[in-house]
Amino acid sequence: MASDKKKRRRTDSDHDGAATSLPHQKLLKPDSAILSSLKSLSAATSSSTSSTSKALTLADLSLSSTCREVIDLSLSSVQSSIESLALSITHSILSGRGFSFSVPSRSAANHLYVPELDRIVLKDKSSLRPYSSVATVRKATVTARILQLIHQLCLKNIHVTKRDLFYTDVKLFQDQTQSDSVLDDVSCILGCTRSSLNVVAAEKGVVVGRLIFSDNGDLIDCTKMGMGGKAIPPNIDRVGDMSSDALFILLVEKDAAYMRLAEDRFYNRFPCIIVTAKGQPDVATRLFLRKMKMELKLPVLALVDSDPYGLKILSVYGCGSKNMSYDSANLTTPDIKWLGIRPSDLDKYKIPEQCRLPMTEQDIKTGKDMLEEDFVKKNPGWVEELSLMVKTKQKAEIQALSSFGFQYLSEVYLPLKLQQQDWL
Amino acid sequence: MASDKKKRRRTDSDHDGAATSLPHQKLLKPDSAILSSLKSLSAATSSSTSSTSKALTLADLSLSSTCREVIDLSLSSVQSSIESLALSITHSILSGRGFSFSVPSRSAANHLYVPELDRIVLKDKSSLRPYSSVATVRKATVTARILQLIHQLCLKNIHVTKRDLFYTDVKLFQDQTQSDSVLDDVSCILGCTRSSLNVVAAEKGVVVGRLIFSDNGDLIDCTKMGMGGKAIPPNIDRVGDMSSDALFILLVEKDAAYMRLAEDRFYNRFPCIIVTAKGQPDVATRLFLRKMKMELKLPVLALVDSDPYGLKILSVYGCGSKNMSYDSANLTTPDIKWLGIRPSDLDKYKIPEQCRLPMTEQDIKTGKDMLEEDFVKKNPGWVEELSLMVKTKQKAEIQALSSFGFQYLSEVYLPLKLQQQDWL
Repeated sequence: MASDKKKRRRTDSDHDGAATSLPHQKLLKPDSAILSSLKSLSAATSSSTSSTSKALTLADLSLSSTCREVIDLSLSSVQSSIESLALSITHSILSGRGFSFSVPSRSAANHLYVPELDRIVLKDKSSLRPYSSVATVRKATVTARILQLIHQLCLKNIHVTKRDLFYTDVKLFQDQTQSDSVLDDVSCILGCTRSSLNVVAAEKGVVVGRLIFSDNGDLIDCTKMGMGGKAIPPNIDRVGDMSSDALFILLVEKDAAYMRLAEDRFYNRFPCIIVTAKGQPDVATRLFLRKMKMELKLPVLALVDSDPYGLKILSVYGCGSKNMSYDSANLTTPDIKWLGIRPSDLDKYKIPEQCRLPMTEQDIKTGKDMLEEDFVKKNPGWVEELSLMVKTKQKAEIQALSSFGFQYLSEVYLPLKLQQQDWL
Repeated sequence: MASDKKKRRRTDSDHDGAATSLPHQKLLKPDSAILSSLKSLSAATSSSTSSTSKALTLADLSLSSTCREVIDLSLSSVQSSIESLALSITHSILSGRGFSFSVPSRSAANHLYVPELDRIVLKDKSSLRPYSSVATVRKATVTARILQLIHQLCLKNIHVTKRDLFYTDVKLFQDQTQSDSVLDDVSCILGCTRSSLNVVAAEKGVVVGRLIFSDNGDLIDCTKMGMGGKAIPPNIDRVGDMSSDALFILLVEKDAAYMRLAEDRFYNRFPCIIVTAKGQPDVATRLFLRKMKMELKLPVLALVDSDPYGLKILSVYGCGSKNMSYDSANLTTPDIKWLGIRPSDLDKYKIPEQCRLPMTEQDIKTGKDMLEEDFVKKNPGWVEELSLMVKTKQKAEIQALSSFGFQYLSEVYLPLKLQQQDWL
């Protein structure tokens, strides 16, 4: 028995010669055929991206309401803006008028989905935050303190987390939600992105595959990052020099699927970049994905769970979260395709009943609410899939494919999806 | 004003020439003096590690109760063990005796802290899991199924997550806690580590600094990983070829402190390897830390919050968790030093009152419980610090140091700790 053990072990070269016992495996064409169709697709994407997506900004649209967006500012511009603001406040105080901040509103009523841009933006409503009112004196003080701290960061040219910021003055901020919220206000007041303020979020995402980029001056080759991959840097402004020979970017919701693909070096069989935020998208991963899409002009294909939250995650990458709508231009990646797992895949790929999960009341409600969202409605294919999910009341995780074998995802499901260009 | 902006910006070369306005900063000696004392320390550690720590195993001790430990097995040994087990079960069934698994107990009563080894181990109590009993038929079936799935992994030589494993037979396993728990049983039955079974946990940790290692065949230089660092690989068996010119390993509890040190490239000023699991230690990071300590023979200094959970985290790295005590020999890193933030540091470094947090009832209870734990009691310095914490009822996070400026951690606190060799 020991003698034939080696023989039975899977080697990297048996992709094409394996026994075709798995469902749908016999439909698979040779890799070369799939690759050549992907190549023509990639060429089409990069030409269309450069001609259309690049052109459309808020300024190009004649919207009924004025909208507000922030931009990336250099550190010295942020510094100057804070200094100008401080000067104008000083003048106001010296002239006996006291002072007050004019803060753009980030409440729900001030949000707008712009179909032409396919993302949520902030309208132009603002509110005053006077120092001389009992109701706002604390918040005005917090705002001034945050502005002062950001000014320090500009002088030192370093990055800190929101948590660090909170700890510089616990007595004033009381709890972190207060300093976090005012930090978003300060972005809006100064009209710049949070990254421009040098305040970064904890890193969570990883990337592996056909991508080379520089992180804080070090050149990183993501095909040489083993199975662990490269942690996505928290500060996008120190990321640059992206280059790639990939044909697409594979955006994966879950860590487990990412690991399967990294271990199988899926990116060598089908040249791609694989990226995951391990669940809810964090700001660093969203910025990184957008930067890849914009600089490399590659199609982005999303592999998420077949449940309302999978689609929700896709929507955060695609058109932004309401909380940070003021920065949607920088945080969102246009034109993400829904590859799978889609509700119609459950029957198509014959996912066994026991691997499907019944949707809870809450799931169904979330699904129905999403059917009303503009970003879903503008894509008839998504409406159809989501309606099917709500109708069948069934959901499934990416891992459900493991019921056909641990490598079904990388060896059958994904290749077939690519071959059939089956995304919406 | 614009003209002197550049001047005021911090450059990387001002470590020694900076104004000494921060608390304790004037105590700092030149880096060269700190480095030379660290070098002699490092030499002492590596010689002591090789002579003592290496020698002690369970077998060397004459303990009153027999203890059970698992070892790393090659994939083919795991495969053979499963096949032998299947054969013996077949014999048992054919001879009319039915079958039953003998499963080592992992209940609290079966745990033992061994001071000589400084870790928790599993005693030798086992229980039978017969197929012919209504109470255990399900669990026996689950055990057989998990064994079969692990056997498949051996044949294919791939790694999967616990979640993948669960999804291969949702109908049988019902929920993931059941397949997870039986997976630990299977480790104990076969007497091998969970890594040997090729079932890996989600990766969470990152590493940066003076370390070179190979991940799945790719050589990684962790000084060239920018600010993001390298994600710690989920499968330790594909990690190798570690080399380093570091003087110590800095184990950091929190992401924020890690980022501060990575951005400041602290490892270039004081040659070290910086590692974090971003909170609770995961199995991959624990295995990675142990491997670094064992192969590189470097002292490990821990930077954790000054609260009972910081010490708890230190203890999981140091002497293991009860849930996986059967594998404590492979998962634990001996002789981790508690660098800070220690309760006595709060006054010593004059952490402002508003950055200290009052301990909750639960915190105080956890602290008191930990004072009774063997791994705390064997270190009189730890007992003293923890008693102080419980007495003052104050806790503080690493970030509390930010109240002296964002870079106080990397520019004053840590250098001074290293200079004074102030760890326990």
